[in-house]
Amino acid sequence: MYVRKYILLLGLMVISVKVSAESGEALWMRYLKLPSDLQSLYIPYAQVYFEEGSSTIEVAKQELAQAFVGLTGVDIKFQKKPFKCSLLIGKNVNQFWNIPDIEKNLKKCANEGFVIRSVKRNGVRRIIVTANTDAGILYGTFALIRLMQTGCPLDSLNIIERPKYKFRLLNHWDNLDGTVERGYAGRSIWWNRKETLDALKHQYLTYARANASIGINGTVLNNVNANPKVLDQEYIEKFARFADLLRPYNIKVFMSINFSSPVIIGGLPSSDPLREDVQQWWNQKVKEIYEAIPDFGGFLVKANSEGQPGPQDYGRSHADGANMLARALEPYGGIVMWRAFVYSPSGDDRAKQAYDEFVPLDGQFRDNVIIQVKNGPIDFQPREPFSPLFGAMEKTPLMIEFQITQEYLGFSDHLVYLAPLQKECLDSDTYVKNEGSTVAIVTNGTLFKHQYSAIAGVANIGRDINWTGHHFAQANWYAFGRLAWNHNLKPEDIAREWIKMTFTHDSVFVESVLDIMMRSREAVVNYMTPMGLHHLMGWDHHYGPAPWTDIEGARPDWLPRYYHNASEEGIGFNRSKSGSNAVSQYAEPLCSMFNNPKTCPQNLLLWFHHLPWDYRLSSGLTLWQELCYHYYRGVDEVKLMQKKWDRLRGRIDDERFEHVQHKLKVQVREAKWWRDACVLYFQTFSKMPIPYELERPEHDLDELMNLKFDMKNHN
Amino acid sequence: MYVRKYILLLGLMVISVKVSAESGEALWMRYLKLPSDLQSLYIPYAQVYFEEGSSTIEVAKQELAQAFVGLTGVDIKFQKKPFKCSLLIGKNVNQFWNIPDIEKNLKKCANEGFVIRSVKRNGVRRIIVTANTDAGILYGTFALIRLMQTGCPLDSLNIIERPKYKFRLLNHWDNLDGTVERGYAGRSIWWNRKETLDALKHQYLTYARANASIGINGTVLNNVNANPKVLDQEYIEKFARFADLLRPYNIKVFMSINFSSPVIIGGLPSSDPLREDVQQWWNQKVKEIYEAIPDFGGFLVKANSEGQPGPQDYGRSHADGANMLARALEPYGGIVMWRAFVYSPSGDDRAKQAYDEFVPLDGQFRDNVIIQVKNGPIDFQPREPFSPLFGAMEKTPLMIEFQITQEYLGFSDHLVYLAPLQKECLDSDTYVKNEGSTVAIVTNGTLFKHQYSAIAGVANIGRDINWTGHHFAQANWYAFGRLAWNHNLKPEDIAREWIKMTFTHDSVFVESVLDIMMRSREAVVNYMTPMGLHHLMGWDHHYGPAPWTDIEGARPDWLPRYYHNASEEGIGFNRSKSGSNAVSQYAEPLCSMFNNPKTCPQNLLLWFHHLPWDYRLSSGLTLWQELCYHYYRGVDEVKLMQKKWDRLRGRIDDERFEHVQHKLKVQVREAKWWRDACVLYFQTFSKMPIPYELERPEHDLDELMNLKFDMKNHN
Repeated sequence: MYVRKYILLLGLMVISVKVSAESGEALWMRYLKLPSDLQSLYIPYAQVYFEEGSSTIEVAKQELAQAFVGLTGVDIKFQKKPFKCSLLIGKNVNQFWNIPDIEKNLKKCANEGFVIRSVKRNGVRRIIVTANTDAGILYGTFALIRLMQTGCPLDSLNIIERPKYKFRLLNHWDNLDGTVERGYAGRSIWWNRKETLDALKHQYLTYARANASIGINGTVLNNVNANPKVLDQEYIEKFARFADLLRPYNIKVFMSINFSSPVIIGGLPSSDPLREDVQQWWNQKVKEIYEAIPDFGGFLVKANSEGQPGPQDYGRSHADGANMLARALEPYGGIVMWRAFVYSPSGDDRAKQAYDEFVPLDGQFRDNVIIQVKNGPIDFQPREPFSPLFGAMEKTPLMIEFQITQEYLGFSDHLVYLAPLQKECLDSDTYVKNEGSTVAIVTNGTLFKHQYSAIAGVANIGRDINWTGHHFAQANWYAFGRLAWNHNLKPEDIAREWIKMTFTHDSVFVESVLDIMMRSREAVVNYMTPMGLHHLMGWDHHYGPAPWTDIEGARPDWLPRYYHNASEEGIGFNRSKSGSNAVSQYAEPLCSMFNNPKTCPQNLLLWFHHLPWDYRLSSGLTLWQELCYHYYRGVDEVKLMQKKWDRLRGRIDDERFEHVQHKLKVQVREAKWWRDACVLYFQTFSKMPIPYELERPEHDLDELMNLKFDMKNHN
Repeated sequence: MYVRKYILLLGLMVISVKVSAESGEALWMRYLKLPSDLQSLYIPYAQVYFEEGSSTIEVAKQELAQAFVGLTGVDIKFQKKPFKCSLLIGKNVNQFWNIPDIEKNLKKCANEGFVIRSVKRNGVRRIIVTANTDAGILYGTFALIRLMQTGCPLDSLNIIERPKYKFRLLNHWDNLDGTVERGYAGRSIWWNRKETLDALKHQYLTYARANASIGINGTVLNNVNANPKVLDQEYIEKFARFADLLRPYNIKVFMSINFSSPVIIGGLPSSDPLREDVQQWWNQKVKEIYEAIPDFGGFLVKANSEGQPGPQDYGRSHADGANMLARALEPYGGIVMWRAFVYSPSGDDRAKQAYDEFVPLDGQFRDNVIIQVKNGPIDFQPREPFSPLFGAMEKTPLMIEFQITQEYLGFSDHLVYLAPLQKECLDSDTYVKNEGSTVAIVTNGTLFKHQYSAIAGVANIGRDINWTGHHFAQANWYAFGRLAWNHNLKPEDIAREWIKMTFTHDSVFVESVLDIMMRSREAVVNYMTPMGLHHLMGWDHHYGPAPWTDIEGARPDWLPRYYHNASEEGIGFNRSKSGSNAVSQYAEPLCSMFNNPKTCPQNLLLWFHHLPWDYRLSSGLTLWQELCYHYYRGVDEVKLMQKKWDRLRGRIDDERFEHVQHKLKVQVREAKWWRDACVLYFQTFSKMPIPYELERPEHDLDELMNLKFDMKNHN
């Protein structure tokens, strides 16, 4: 398809560029031909010795072949003998060269790591990719492909990698009826499908390849709000078939279970975890699963949380419940991921409750239990402080749960690159042992030396042709995997990889889009919930702004005003020592820093403090003024993103260009909706003018309060 | 009502100001107490000798009394004897002092002018207001009141004024059923009212006072698309009652008539103006009218225009029709205003037709016929060149018709100060005799020495409590009257008077609002129809943008594309010599200047030329780029107006402040609607990008094209 490149301002040139139409279906594995200078770098490596092996080795080999010909236009020649090859891949390929430091480095690679090494002997350049396991070869091969996709020279490689977390998981909140809770890219790829498995195979293998390419090694196939039927034989068989498809890609399947399953599908009188019949039932169920899926990963459990059943229904603790399941899974090497997302409407500050409930249980969990903790103490907001549980349970492995799907960040309508959010959390210093006790170090098992470590992301995947609704939401899937593999990677580097692989090497495009992506998270914070505000979204959809919501009979902790507490006196949640004292759940010096509004970071100020509208900030502005500036800045940033995108027309295919262009238009509109709604609503309390150098709101508060949200437009 | 004056940015002061709530009903005649320093300037003039006289003198005296006590808090003492008075008003007051140059100046004042003179004798200051007629005294009194309202010192006045036009008229397009064609301030104040005349008297007298205060001396009470019933005895009586109310204020009533009245209500077989029975019928009708209204002004006629009947229906000319009516009116001193607003769909360029039809008739009209010509050759657009008829009919008095109601300028929703538009037209040099033959000089009777001269404005008045829908639309009523009195006044000076009288003397407010008003007309040109574009409005409502309109069976000259001619080749109406040659209707050097796109003023470029999208302008930009910048500038200007208004809160009453604030919000929104609609629609032809430093459009073209216009929201 020919795209006329539009004449630039004072246009000097008219260029025609051929760009293919693309749907986004291929994700970052498009393998289109590289610029010719890069091709010539890689073509010398077309003579390949790929050590034979398992199905995992086979898929790695096929991937390399597909990628190589796509990127260079030259077919790989797979050779039986290594000596004339320029690229050697396999667990044992170093035997041919016996390079000592490769052996040494392999020891650092553990189970899933790999070594990639450029070698020059007798004037011949070669690349060796090796590992201790087939999985390592798979990841090493994908790493090599990525180097080519991103245009790296290959003649002086010396790469040793191993993943930072043992389990790197996607959580699909997919219901068995095919709907996806908080899913904005169509229905479930897993459940309630009319097509045959054969017809879907291409889709599932693309899913598997994509995850393998970024190191994801486990996937929970059903919603944490679990339907008990998932344990029926019918569904166990379906899990088994998915496991078979994913196994070559080193991806284990996991299952969310309903704690009341013994009663609901087992017919037992109780699901009390201390009852022997209940325990027996679970043992039997687990046995059935492992007969079907020998490498089954384990269970994910949401119990006694938001109405889900759990051990507390029988007067038992979370530990009692988790341990019962852990005992059943232990003989097979399975794990229990037990969610700490608990809070009750009658209790204390919601932000404190998970900590209060779980910390006393530290030491009571069996070794194969991991407590799954959301990154922040409330619920996947545009910005939260890290959850105080991180670092507070020395004897228990804690895994971090991020949300890739944008439940509170504009669904798949808003372009928000989430790596900076995740990185901010992972890099947060908990100070629990000493300086440098970051959330990453706490959760990856290093700090407290736990056997298991894990990290999970709630998937944003659905049946949409482009997988994630928004083309840029693919970047959040990609970046989550990359950070799970190595949390030391920089979000901008991950983004640059992804842009090159997903769109083009055109440096104008790459740098402009990088800039767009890197602005996007702070933009959404600013236009939705700046300065530590949180949960201002409509209570039933979590999409648009509804800080005014007052629903009779609704749980107060599901309503925005529980969180913003706006009144004529001021705004914010007092979590300091004079308030809910949530600050005390953080180690010093954080506790003191958060407790004092003068030292509390401004981007969390209203998370920890309720302050008067005329409270004077270090900028010299009042709280009210600063809040207005933040909301306006959010909109301005999105406008800037939109302008930057718009001038990239012609540098990529029109299909994706226009899709994103349209989404950005929606985002600008909705950013204004957010800004106007919040500023005008809070102004009814502050009674102060919007700073006069700012544009006036576009909407009336009444009009915004009467907008009806139609979920149909957002799925 | 107490208004909290909001804290300014980095607010240093909090002030409470008492401001009264106001509805706008009192127009610019609020007569609220002035700042005390001004009061003290005027209180010395409370001893007044007001010469007794007609009802006109009586209303002037009452007005002065009301104004004086309102503005100063001190009641006037009317004295029987002049010698102790400080203010003397009357036709003969100079006899007491016999100041020679007052006598001399009175000669220059003609019928409606006046002299105001400060005199100091024996250490005593006095003011003399005098005139040749009662009307002159009325206008002189209002002028004196205005001097006080606007805070002028009175101790060295030497004012001689006389109106530039003999007839200064409002045209009400009010239908007898109470609707108002192109009226956006509620239903007609004149027709189909349920209240008794007594109940409405206050309203009518406010109307009369307002008009007298600005020198309006005639009013056409019914729509030019005239219902024949207006000539029924019932309506003649109603006209007579209105005339009785208005007479003391020197306002004559006029009537729009339907040319087919002899057939429709007279029962004659024809309305042919050359038939004697028809002439007799009109003579009789006029006689009836003058029996009821001895000072009846005359007829306004829209004939053979937009479906109205006329003499051409009988093969007669406009002159035949107008002269028949003129003969009937002549004995009583009445006039005929015959509209030149004629065009037919089958004919030549609509902009040329009035000229082509009327110029050949020059010299054929009777002396008491005035041809009423719209300011531009099409129809009350945000910008048009002046009508080429001005100056082209030396032997015929031409009157200029402006539209005060904003048919094509955002109705009563948009703040647009029209004086700059009117002034631009009046000051336009026609070059018909020599340099300086402005439209004003042509129409006020000076250039060609006509007995009659007239100027008309289509009223924007309705039953709304504030008279005009938008508070700022009052300024257009006011400014029209002031310019009709003296077209040499500057729009900014008129605006400053009006702001002070209507709102406050607060100089911050006055200067800010002046700036808003002075920006407003160019803003609306830019966001609706910049660079000479015209008639892009929805064809059935004339409100929002609809350049795409294509209605099967609609008259092509009622559809926007007739005017914009956008295609892939370019945009604009070729009226140059290579096109419709409308330029030839203008005198040199205008004809040559308009004919050449290099010399044609840029703000009329697409009026006279069809040019390619990449046509390079003197700015170095292409036509497309320049067009985009104009549309965006229009929106930016309205945003600026809005910001300027917003910071004036507390300086006037909240009631009007918030009313205007809301209207400005609507205007910003609709300016964007205009901008996006036109830019996106024209982009489908230009196929060029919107310059990248400009914000991206907010709307999608599809969405805008599907918007339904609901007239109910705009009346």
